[in-house]
Amino acid sequence: MQKLRVELGERSYSIVMDSNILSGLGRALERFEFSRKVALVSNPTVYGLFGKEITESLKGSGFDLLEVIIPDGEKYKSLSSAEMIYGELLKAKLDRRSCLIALGGGVIGDLTGYAASTYMRGIDFIQVPTTLLAQVDSSVGGKTGVNHSLGKNMIGTFWQPRLVWIDISTLKTLPPREFCSGLAEVIKYGVIWDREFFNMLEASREKILALDEVTLIEVIRRSCEIKAEVVSQDERESGLRAILNYGHTVGHAVETLTGYTRYLHGEAVAIGMHAAARLSNVLGLMDEKQVLRIKALIEACGLPTEVPANIRDEDVLSAMQLDKKTVSGTLRFVLPEKIGSVRIQADIRAEEIIKAIRD
Amino acid sequence: MQKLRVELGERSYSIVMDSNILSGLGRALERFEFSRKVALVSNPTVYGLFGKEITESLKGSGFDLLEVIIPDGEKYKSLSSAEMIYGELLKAKLDRRSCLIALGGGVIGDLTGYAASTYMRGIDFIQVPTTLLAQVDSSVGGKTGVNHSLGKNMIGTFWQPRLVWIDISTLKTLPPREFCSGLAEVIKYGVIWDREFFNMLEASREKILALDEVTLIEVIRRSCEIKAEVVSQDERESGLRAILNYGHTVGHAVETLTGYTRYLHGEAVAIGMHAAARLSNVLGLMDEKQVLRIKALIEACGLPTEVPANIRDEDVLSAMQLDKKTVSGTLRFVLPEKIGSVRIQADIRAEEIIKAIRD
Repeated sequence: MQKLRVELGERSYSIVMDSNILSGLGRALERFEFSRKVALVSNPTVYGLFGKEITESLKGSGFDLLEVIIPDGEKYKSLSSAEMIYGELLKAKLDRRSCLIALGGGVIGDLTGYAASTYMRGIDFIQVPTTLLAQVDSSVGGKTGVNHSLGKNMIGTFWQPRLVWIDISTLKTLPPREFCSGLAEVIKYGVIWDREFFNMLEASREKILALDEVTLIEVIRRSCEIKAEVVSQDERESGLRAILNYGHTVGHAVETLTGYTRYLHGEAVAIGMHAAARLSNVLGLMDEKQVLRIKALIEACGLPTEVPANIRDEDVLSAMQLDKKTVSGTLRFVLPEKIGSVRIQADIRAEEIIKAIRD
Repeated sequence: MQKLRVELGERSYSIVMDSNILSGLGRALERFEFSRKVALVSNPTVYGLFGKEITESLKGSGFDLLEVIIPDGEKYKSLSSAEMIYGELLKAKLDRRSCLIALGGGVIGDLTGYAASTYMRGIDFIQVPTTLLAQVDSSVGGKTGVNHSLGKNMIGTFWQPRLVWIDISTLKTLPPREFCSGLAEVIKYGVIWDREFFNMLEASREKILALDEVTLIEVIRRSCEIKAEVVSQDERESGLRAILNYGHTVGHAVETLTGYTRYLHGEAVAIGMHAAARLSNVLGLMDEKQVLRIKALIEACGLPTEVPANIRDEDVLSAMQLDKKTVSGTLRFVLPEKIGSVRIQADIRAEEIIKAIRD
C-alpha cells in the first residue's frame, strides 16, 4: 500500500493507493471522528460496479449509510444536483460531523466536494476516484465545482478532502478511451515538473497501456506526488499552481468550440499541450526536438495533437479570452522551456498563437 | 473614524465605522488590488435610500460597476438568488480579482458573501451593513449562507469579507422594531463576555434608543470588538465561537415554530436569552437577581422575553433537536454563570428546559 501526504497545515491529508482496497475503506474511516451518519455519492454505472463492495465495507464498520445516486454525465455536474444532494442530506439529518464519500470520476468528485464545502458551512469528504483522470488529477488538490450554463466550473470552492483512496483495480473496467484521456494529465506532470518521469513514461508506455499493476501504481503515485507538491506550495492558485494548467488554455478553447462532445477533457488537453509546446518553439523558448518528443508520447498514448481544421483561428482566440484564468483581459500561457520545466508568459501576440496552432 | 481589526492571519480585515461615510467607500477600495469590474448587490429598499451615494463614490474612484438588485425579503436568501447573481457576474465578465459589495442587512450580506465564496472558487467581498443587526453581528465573522426549504442557513460557507464599512447614519431610516431586534445581539455580547459593557448598556439605554451618535458608535464598536475577538480565536466554530449562540437555541426553535413570521430574529433571540438565563438559574449556575437584570434590559429595549403560551413544550424540544449545531443528536446550551461569562453545557434534562421556559 503506497501512501502520500499532501502538506497543507491543518488541512493536510493522505493519498492511499493500491489494488483491491475498496473493501478496506470502512476500516480506514474508523480513525476519523465522523458522525455515524455518512453519505456515499455515486452514479449508476460506477455504483453498479463497486457500490456493493464499498457499502458493505462502510456498514461493516458501523456507519449509517445514505446513498445518493446522481445520473451519469457531465450535465449533472450542476447546481441542481448539488441542491438535490443537500435535500437528501437534510432529510437523513446528516450533521456537521458527517462526511460525504465521492465514488466515481471527476464529475462525482467535483460535485460531491462542492456539496460538502457548502453543506452547513462545510463538512468533510473523502475521494474514491475510479477513473485515471480523477486518480491523477481531479481528486487531489481541493478544487471543487459545478458548471453554470455560461461556463464550466464557474461555481466552486477550494475544499480539501480528508483522504483520497485510490484503488487502481477500478481502472480494469474503465473504457480505453477514458484511460488514455487520463494519460494526458500524466504526461503533463512530466513536461511541467520532472524530466525523468517523462523518460520513464516513454520507456514504459506499453506496460502502462497494458495496465501492468506495478507500473500503474508507480505512474499514479508520481503524478499525485507532483500535484501534491505544487498544491502544497500554492493551494489557491495565486502563483505556482497555474503551471498545472499547461495545455489547458488551448484545450479549454477546443472543448468549448466543439461543444464538449467531440473530445474528452484529456484529449483536448493533449491538443493544448502540443500547441503550447509549439508556441514555445515559435517564441524561441524550446528546441523542436523536444516538441517532437512531447508530440510522440502524446500520440503513443492514443491521444490527438492537432486543433481540428474546421475550427477558425479567430474563434480559438476569442474562446481563450473567456477562460476563468483570464484576469482583466490578460491571458497567460504555460510554456515549456524544456521537458521538465515551464514558465508562465503573458502578452503573446495572436499571430504567434495562430502560427503555433497551425504550423 | 473608528477602526477595528479582525485578526485571522492572511484573512485579517478591518471594520471601519462612523457617520456619513458611504461616500468614502470608493476611495477606501482603491488601496485593494481589485479588478476595475466590481458588483454592488442590494435590495430595492436599501438601494433606494443609499444606492446613489455608493454608486457615485465607486464610479468616482474608477470602478466599472455592475448593480444586482435582489427583491426584498428573507425568501430571496436562496440558492435561486445566488444562481441569479452568478449569471449576472458571468454576463458582465467579472473575474477572479473582481469584488462584490453587499449593501443591506443580513439577507443581502449573507447571500452576497455566499455568492462571493463560490464564484470562480471564491472572490473578495465587502460588507456595507445597513441594519443594526448586520452591523453588530452578521457582517462580522465570515458566516455566509442561504436557506434551504428544509432549514435556514443550511447551505453556506465560512468566507471572510475584506472590509466591513459601517455607516451608522443608515440607522436613522431603520424601522424602530428592526433597530430593537439588533439590540438583542448587543445585549448578548454583554452577557457572554463583558459585564462592564452590560452595565454601560443599562445606563445608556435611553441614549441608545434616541440614536445618540456618540453612544451608538461606542455600542457598535464594542459589539464588533467582542465578536472579532471571539471569531479570531475560533473562526470555524469548533469551540469558543459557540458562545455567540447564547439565546439562539430556544430562539431558533421559537422562530421555526412561528413560521418566521411572528418574530424578528433578534426578538426570538431575546426570548431565548431570557430562557437560557432562567435555565442557568434552574440548574443552580446563576442567581435570580442576575436573571432579572437580563430580563429588565431586554424589556427596556422593547424586546419580548417569553415563549408564547400557545407553543407546546414538546414542540420546543423537538424543534431544538433539528438545530444545525446539534451533533449526533446532542444539544448544547450556552448558559450564563454570571453577567459577562458563560459556559457550554450538554445533557440537560427536558424537564429542566421546560421549567426554565415556563416558570
